[in-house]
Amino acid sequence: MSPGTLYLIPVPLGPAAPDICLPPDTLAAARRLEHFVAERAKTARAHLKAMGHPRPLQELSIAELNEHTKADEITALLAPLKAGKDVGLMSEAGCPAVADPGAELVRAAHRENIPVVPLIGPSSILLALMGSGLGGQRFCFHGYLPAKEPERTQKIRELEKTARRDKATQLFIETPYRSAVLLQALAATLAPDTLISVGADLSLPSQVIRTQSAKAWRGKDETVKDRLVVFGIGV
Amino acid sequence: MSPGTLYLIPVPLGPAAPDICLPPDTLAAARRLEHFVAERAKTARAHLKAMGHPRPLQELSIAELNEHTKADEITALLAPLKAGKDVGLMSEAGCPAVADPGAELVRAAHRENIPVVPLIGPSSILLALMGSGLGGQRFCFHGYLPAKEPERTQKIRELEKTARRDKATQLFIETPYRSAVLLQALAATLAPDTLISVGADLSLPSQVIRTQSAKAWRGKDETVKDRLVVFGIGV
Repeated sequence: MSPGTLYLIPVPLGPAAPDICLPPDTLAAARRLEHFVAERAKTARAHLKAMGHPRPLQELSIAELNEHTKADEITALLAPLKAGKDVGLMSEAGCPAVADPGAELVRAAHRENIPVVPLIGPSSILLALMGSGLGGQRFCFHGYLPAKEPERTQKIRELEKTARRDKATQLFIETPYRSAVLLQALAATLAPDTLISVGADLSLPSQVIRTQSAKAWRGKDETVKDRLVVFGIGV
Repeated sequence: MSPGTLYLIPVPLGPAAPDICLPPDTLAAARRLEHFVAERAKTARAHLKAMGHPRPLQELSIAELNEHTKADEITALLAPLKAGKDVGLMSEAGCPAVADPGAELVRAAHRENIPVVPLIGPSSILLALMGSGLGGQRFCFHGYLPAKEPERTQKIRELEKTARRDKATQLFIETPYRSAVLLQALAATLAPDTLISVGADLSLPSQVIRTQSAKAWRGKDETVKDRLVVFGIGV
């Protein structure tokens, strides 16, 4: 029997209507599937409901894959695919297998020669990069920076050096309650003319995108306070 | 007068229908605008026609921004925005301001406090990353690798070292006629167990996505021959 296909299904980045921010192709795939893998089944059900899945949600199979999932359980998640069923991998928000544990399932699928089809949708990292104006000929995404000093300052200096040497935009994220602190650490540590971009609440009605010099950001943290932010630095 | 907004409008990655692969929000913005900036006006007109722009195309203003555009001409491109008109920035394919000259216009807009709104659409880099299974907690995009030896081999070794040290996926692109040569250079240079992912013709009907060890790729280049490929390496 030929295996099913693993579809990677992006979801909105927050309270936005899926049929406005997702392409018809992505929605159609999500609505057609009956087997899903997601970080949290509860969130996945909410997304599938918002996407207008035609089947009663309790009839859908939604398996969980998160930081507690062990390696042998990941192999077990491939069972429907090996049995010829298509499966949809969903993230909590945005694109699966980018900054979430879903990549492990995709990697396992490749090991078993199971076809993988990534679908188009919102990525906060990519929207932040586009909107920053910092240039995407070369860029790196680092996830979270160290929360503690002196590691954080050390890392910020290292990123600035890399940005300058490679002409590469350096992107990273921070949790809402630490966004303002990180912005001020960046503004204080970076050279005055180094550019800092801030992408807050990307693709949502409350979205703010702003790029200015480290000097100009000093003492100004209202833009990011308690928001989910993708930061960028460039020269 | 308050300035207009600079919308960043993604377009399909090849011969795909915009109303299938772009979200309604992105299409609606593109159809509403009358001022555009694009790498090549001819391609932009074709995209706008395919998107079903309601106005006769010759009535639309399409300014060019490419590698020949000088710094003072970029400032001139902001004129409609300063006069309160919204402007759409388009790429040849995929997302503007990522691997194209459009970032210069976005940067200039930020300098003038002009609002920037990136819209959702296809990015070959992001689709390749999702589909690779190599993990996106940390990743870097490098554009093109050096075409000549010994620089190319040197760069490949350096990327493998970074992938291992930072647990970061390393992504890069190659022009179709050199894709097969690069794949074999990767397969020969990298450690046998290092993973190489290949994303060819992403989001198109001919799409192929495959991740396997360097060893397994040796002597096999049919997957990438004469195709537009995003490569990834990971460990």
